[in-house]
Amino acid sequence: MTPSVAVFGASGFAGALTARLLYRHPTFMLTAVTARSDVGRRLDEVYPHHRVPMVLEELDLDRHANVDAAVVAYPHGAAAELVVALHRAGVKVIDLSADFRLRDAAVYEEWYRPHPEPELIAQAVYGLPEQYRDEIADAMIVANPGCFPTAAILGLAPLARAGLIGDVVIDAKTGVSGAGRGATDQTHFVTVDENMNAYSVPRHRHTPEIEQELAVLGTDRPITFTAHLVPLDQGELLSCYVTPAGGRSDDVRALYLEAYADEPFVEVVTAPPGVRDVRETNICRISVHRDERTGRIVVFAAIDNLWKGTASQAVQNLNLMFGRPEGEGIS
Amino acid sequence: MTPSVAVFGASGFAGALTARLLYRHPTFMLTAVTARSDVGRRLDEVYPHHRVPMVLEELDLDRHANVDAAVVAYPHGAAAELVVALHRAGVKVIDLSADFRLRDAAVYEEWYRPHPEPELIAQAVYGLPEQYRDEIADAMIVANPGCFPTAAILGLAPLARAGLIGDVVIDAKTGVSGAGRGATDQTHFVTVDENMNAYSVPRHRHTPEIEQELAVLGTDRPITFTAHLVPLDQGELLSCYVTPAGGRSDDVRALYLEAYADEPFVEVVTAPPGVRDVRETNICRISVHRDERTGRIVVFAAIDNLWKGTASQAVQNLNLMFGRPEGEGIS
Amino acid sequence: MTPSVAVFGASGFAGALTARLLYRHPTFMLTAVTARSDVGRRLDEVYPHHRVPMVLEELDLDRHANVDAAVVAYPHGAAAELVVALHRAGVKVIDLSADFRLRDAAVYEEWYRPHPEPELIAQAVYGLPEQYRDEIADAMIVANPGCFPTAAILGLAPLARAGLIGDVVIDAKTGVSGAGRGATDQTHFVTVDENMNAYSVPRHRHTPEIEQELAVLGTDRPITFTAHLVPLDQGELLSCYVTPAGGRSDDVRALYLEAYADEPFVEVVTAPPGVRDVRETNICRISVHRDERTGRIVVFAAIDNLWKGTASQAVQNLNLMFGRPEGEGIS
Amino acid sequence: MTPSVAVFGASGFAGALTARLLYRHPTFMLTAVTARSDVGRRLDEVYPHHRVPMVLEELDLDRHANVDAAVVAYPHGAAAELVVALHRAGVKVIDLSADFRLRDAAVYEEWYRPHPEPELIAQAVYGLPEQYRDEIADAMIVANPGCFPTAAILGLAPLARAGLIGDVVIDAKTGVSGAGRGATDQTHFVTVDENMNAYSVPRHRHTPEIEQELAVLGTDRPITFTAHLVPLDQGELLSCYVTPAGGRSDDVRALYLEAYADEPFVEVVTAPPGVRDVRETNICRISVHRDERTGRIVVFAAIDNLWKGTASQAVQNLNLMFGRPEGEGIS
Repeated sequence: MTPSVAVFGASGFAGALTARLLYRHPTFMLTAVTARSDVGRRLDEVYPHHRVPMVLEELDLDRHANVDAAVVAYPHGAAAELVVALHRAGVKVIDLSADFRLRDAAVYEEWYRPHPEPELIAQAVYGLPEQYRDEIADAMIVANPGCFPTAAILGLAPLARAGLIGDVVIDAKTGVSGAGRGATDQTHFVTVDENMNAYSVPRHRHTPEIEQELAVLGTDRPITFTAHLVPLDQGELLSCYVTPAGGRSDDVRALYLEAYADEPFVEVVTAPPGVRDVRETNICRISVHRDERTGRIVVFAAIDNLWKGTASQAVQNLNLMFGRPEGEGIS
Repeated sequence: MTPSVAVFGASGFAGALTARLLYRHPTFMLTAVTARSDVGRRLDEVYPHHRVPMVLEELDLDRHANVDAAVVAYPHGAAAELVVALHRAGVKVIDLSADFRLRDAAVYEEWYRPHPEPELIAQAVYGLPEQYRDEIADAMIVANPGCFPTAAILGLAPLARAGLIGDVVIDAKTGVSGAGRGATDQTHFVTVDENMNAYSVPRHRHTPEIEQELAVLGTDRPITFTAHLVPLDQGELLSCYVTPAGGRSDDVRALYLEAYADEPFVEVVTAPPGVRDVRETNICRISVHRDERTGRIVVFAAIDNLWKGTASQAVQNLNLMFGRPEGEGIS
Repeated sequence: MTPSVAVFGASGFAGALTARLLYRHPTFMLTAVTARSDVGRRLDEVYPHHRVPMVLEELDLDRHANVDAAVVAYPHGAAAELVVALHRAGVKVIDLSADFRLRDAAVYEEWYRPHPEPELIAQAVYGLPEQYRDEIADAMIVANPGCFPTAAILGLAPLARAGLIGDVVIDAKTGVSGAGRGATDQTHFVTVDENMNAYSVPRHRHTPEIEQELAVLGTDRPITFTAHLVPLDQGELLSCYVTPAGGRSDDVRALYLEAYADEPFVEVVTAPPGVRDVRETNICRISVHRDERTGRIVVFAAIDNLWKGTASQAVQNLNLMFGRPEGEGIS
Repeated sequence: MTPSVAVFGASGFAGALTARLLYRHPTFMLTAVTARSDVGRRLDEVYPHHRVPMVLEELDLDRHANVDAAVVAYPHGAAAELVVALHRAGVKVIDLSADFRLRDAAVYEEWYRPHPEPELIAQAVYGLPEQYRDEIADAMIVANPGCFPTAAILGLAPLARAGLIGDVVIDAKTGVSGAGRGATDQTHFVTVDENMNAYSVPRHRHTPEIEQELAVLGTDRPITFTAHLVPLDQGELLSCYVTPAGGRSDDVRALYLEAYADEPFVEVVTAPPGVRDVRETNICRISVHRDERTGRIVVFAAIDNLWKGTASQAVQNLNLMFGRPEGEGIS
């Protein structure tokens, strides 16, 4: 079996990397890459280092919906319509946008806009394999997590499950690729270089997604989440400051080692991880520390925002949906 | 009057920049620069961009203590002895190390080592002009604050004074010059570039200094402080997450505007500041935000770690000690 | 006397820096900053680090031509018309564009487009003080040199005057601010970071400007000039490979030391200069080397492209035009 | 057959990357990694991103010479002795140092030091597969080329073979990993960041290696070669300025397309290549341009200095020596 896959929106950073991973994947056959800009250009002209010698096509559902699976790399709000169309055509869909991540359409509306396809939300599975492995395997629509929520949930899940999270502050730092390919004052080299600053304060849209998943794990309270832009291209580091709730928190490191003992893509380490340690990998690298003076637990979680934070996690999900080894094509 | 000044330890980043600022200062006369490495080299050979055409000399107290003022840029522990010698020779001293910052020798010993000159601690003034302007003017020994404490205290003082700090987490990010001139695996370009990570977790030595000064302002409880290294050369950004205590916190921005209305080197702004905004200045740039969902107050404070964080603040202090306009030579 | 100056096109990198330098200049009074984008915003909002608290205005010649001097920071082609209008109003003008740099309108047309105001070319003086100090002092229109030509001519003039240039290859490397403020794929952080490449090959528009000035100095032959983009914000390094013509080339270093002995803004050094050595200065730093094996002379010249390459050189020219000390406001 | 391989000197950048590639190679079995520093540490502790869970051992030839092949990643001068010992033990050796690259011991002595093992030079093959594929397959000692020579020879070979090189200037720009892992003032982040400069002027040691190989191809004259350090970690760009000799140079691009039509790791492209295009690949990407005004031919060649410039090229050579597909483990 060689399932055919198309990537829609392959001219952006996330879509292009997904195309690269699928183009070289031993099982899947990448049959089309579409885009809304750069139509007619070859992907290896736009992104030479990905070396995908395919031409970016204009979307034509008559032709392009004729695949086994699709990855939709459209902006929030624009993705839902295409996801619905593909779903109705029987295509298994991975949506990289936020459109199907929030289970409550009212919450989506509060943070984004009125949801364009609320009736389909219930059918989507949140695509974090470490939490929803079985559900993903059976899903027709997978809502690929945001990059910050991926690191946040992996970084906090063992504490949340143990009921140890009283309160949490997440200070996130991301490289510039997280801001997307759009050329703006904010992504201009001269703006970013030798600079760093917080943005989207105090209401970053990844906040409700993190809260939703922590609630599933038993920690049902608002969190403080702040994102910062730092001068590097790929990589994301989350520093999570947890005020412990009741529970026993004596040996938090053991909690993590046990929780992730069998996870191929989560590394629990002793020293605070650097983003370079996980660059161009599907790995989330975590360290956990107790500050005896304050009683606080500090967790660091590092990922590559374009890989585990987006594209390679999408492939990990595709592998699950088609019964392939979870790490195929991304190890 | 042209007070003479010497910089001891001028081959490091902080000492060299102090020498540059004093070499061009309209009032002071820089008469000597000493070093423990690079003796005999000209400072403008070691640091061409500072353009200080003076030769680095070996310390010779017989000659070098014959000045009106001295800046000591020695490592923690090594500074105290020289500070004492200069003090006994009647020289006004600014110490860039931590040796006289902590008022309690026991706290110093807990975080550093046994204090070499505990009897002199009481005579040192903590050199943050915005808090101790009058005391600095009369001081014979000024303990120049650490770079992180400078930004932390300026960023939190209005809240502390208003009794609004219930609990605080400080997430600090610094450029590499903060790690000093020493060439190590940690300061190698290839280690730092495209990387970021926390360090000195969970006991960074600037913690007690911040706690001491917050206590003076009325907030007497342990804080969580974590430092991160990011790939840029100069600049420091602190993100402070405050859980409010009682008090009224309705209009925190007004608190800041009022507190810093007359401060020439503190800017209260609306959007989160970037370190590029304050590069090569003596300015601390602050924004304060309330997260209505969590009730938390978030404060961002940006400085140049080598300028307001060290060298230009030392000159600001020298100006105060000699009755000069506070911003002379550093505006 | 306090001459009034306006900066037209102050929302770009070069215009904004010129405004900063003039705003703090002890002699000139900056009376207006205009822009074609960002009208109505304060300049210190667009560029906080320049700290110029003036509002960007829309151009209104009725008001804005009422100044003693003007700096025009418009794109090539768009500048000429404004320069003419200001000139007719009796304003001394410094044009940062290429529009009046080339003395031959046919050459301009070959490399740019038909010249919009050819009759005015003859009245413009090429604004490289080290070559045209006296002419600049008397000029009504000064064509501020391109950044690459500034470094190239300063780097090669001593050899050119000595008749030593048989053939020359110039390999230029520039930081991204040289590409301007426009947000494009080419200036996106993710494109530039960890990258470098040549551009405008083989016909970079600064080529004829360099050839023109070398011809004035006696070296009348085509040169090879190639520019490269490197991942830094400000700074420009030219590596010039000269095959000597007849002449004596035994002691080329002495030639340079003699040529620049009295120049306040040219440093002749022994080791190859780095751009960090001249960052945020009006200085060109040069080293010259003879490769005994090949007989070739290699010259390195480093400048800050926004300072000596543009804005501070404009102020240097203004100083000359108004009889002020050449380094006033830029040292 | 699973040939066993050891990497000697695996704590440096080149050795560690070679170990990573071999650890995951489908044919070879990496049996030992040795080092002179960091003995006893795991390689994935020193270089987490390489993920090689092997302990760095002290060299013990009794044990370590018992392999089918070895990669020696020692400094110049120190490598020869170990290469000889391994060779005598019957091990196929790839030497990453310069010790066996120059065929003439007198030239080696002129640029390095007296050669420690001159009698073995004749048995070494220069390890550039695109030039010596057959000889490498039969070699017992392969002298892996320097990073600059790799790009220079691939960039100039088609012109050299066609007799078109009259004179050549090579301006090389390299990322900091090319300077090695040693922590020095020169590799300190603060020295390199926002900086660039030429080094080893005018006698860079890669010069004779380039001249030797160009002579083999028919171009027997001294070249001008200059290296520059730029602020990025991996990547090397060579700009080659060729004054054509007699020959026909009308369609130089066709020369290149023909020369490299069958080379899997050389890409001939139209626009000047960027180093990002080849990052973490074994590919050399080349563009060639004619400047009609000067008649000069300009060639740009980009490689990853640690991959095609060192480690992946070593694996490419190992593949050839053991009859494996040339791109196995490095594509």
